[in-house]
Amino acid sequence: MVSLRVKTARRTQLLDITREVQKAVAESTVNSGVCTIYVPHTTAGVIINEHADPDVASDMEAAFDQMAPREGNYRHAEGNSDSHIKTALTGTSQVVLVEGGKLALGRWQGIFFCEFDGPRERTVWVKIGADRDRG
Amino acid sequence: MVSLRVKTARRTQLLDITREVQKAVAESTVNSGVCTIYVPHTTAGVIINEHADPDVASDMEAAFDQMAPREGNYRHAEGNSDSHIKTALTGTSQVVLVEGGKLALGRWQGIFFCEFDGPRERTVWVKIGADRDRG
Amino acid sequence: MVSLRVKTARRTQLLDITREVQKAVAESTVNSGVCTIYVPHTTAGVIINEHADPDVASDMEAAFDQMAPREGNYRHAEGNSDSHIKTALTGTSQVVLVEGGKLALGRWQGIFFCEFDGPRERTVWVKIGADRDRG
Repeated sequence: MVSLRVKTARRTQLLDITREVQKAVAESTVNSGVCTIYVPHTTAGVIINEHADPDVASDMEAAFDQMAPREGNYRHAEGNSDSHIKTALTGTSQVVLVEGGKLALGRWQGIFFCEFDGPRERTVWVKIGADRDRG
Repeated sequence: MVSLRVKTARRTQLLDITREVQKAVAESTVNSGVCTIYVPHTTAGVIINEHADPDVASDMEAAFDQMAPREGNYRHAEGNSDSHIKTALTGTSQVVLVEGGKLALGRWQGIFFCEFDGPRERTVWVKIGADRDRG
Repeated sequence: MVSLRVKTARRTQLLDITREVQKAVAESTVNSGVCTIYVPHTTAGVIINEHADPDVASDMEAAFDQMAPREGNYRHAEGNSDSHIKTALTGTSQVVLVEGGKLALGRWQGIFFCEFDGPRERTVWVKIGADRDRG
């Protein structure tokens, strides 16, 4: 398991971490397998989506803020119930296949750390499981 | 694969099953690997989120009921289309890394079974995959 | 890794691909393991939900279109920001356990490719990882 550090700058922020995860895959020397990206927080998640046009991430940030508004009739006293709800919507992990020693991402896909209660320093765990030899 | 039984008490209920999954991991004797938690239902899911303050789960239950209201212009005649939609939003599985024979959860993270059409008796499948020996 | 081709007919469409994934599992000759279904697109996802009554899929399609409306105050100029948002909500992968050489799905569960910017020809990657022998 590799631990990555992520530093976010805004309360709601989708941050492209594809390069860092790719590096962890390369260093694992696994040729073929499955990469699990896991966020050990309860107000931050991870998604896979387009990272070519940064406007896509902006639109998704706005959409999450609209689906779970910051102000609401919440019980939890810390003022971040919306952050927990957004995390439930994105999920705390993603899996990506590994082929030829690299993340097998689609042409437009990147991996985004999803900050929902920033700015903060955060952690992402990456584990690369090798395929079992079958021969 | 281990099968857990879960008994829910309300129509929408987030139920903390961390202890039961942890027990399955301990009994598997896997030291390092990946734990998959899978819900074989179509009106119940599973998420990972804060389980320190129960108000967080309450707020998430209310948020799901607001995002997919029970009454609506639905075609499906069983009166639980909202339950299917909520399940699509949470997902039916989660993965958690296993390190040192235990679930590698973040400090505030717990695993919640998400009942969206209760009260009912439900099933959760847990599978712990060991890392491949590489030496 | 097996690559499946999917052809969608509408802009928003949940398409049952259970049979195709089941076939890939059978051909893998893996008896016990984990099947990962991965969508390499940024405007299409995958979920597991009821496939007995097609009205459930219709209701979910309508719900996604309501949660992320096509028209909105979006920055991304391609007119499909809603498609990216819906993809973030469903996720781009699902895992299903494999037991006895078959997908271990719940009684009512099927695997749905989620088209959010169709109609198009799409790709789905399926990888079946075998359990490690422990004896």
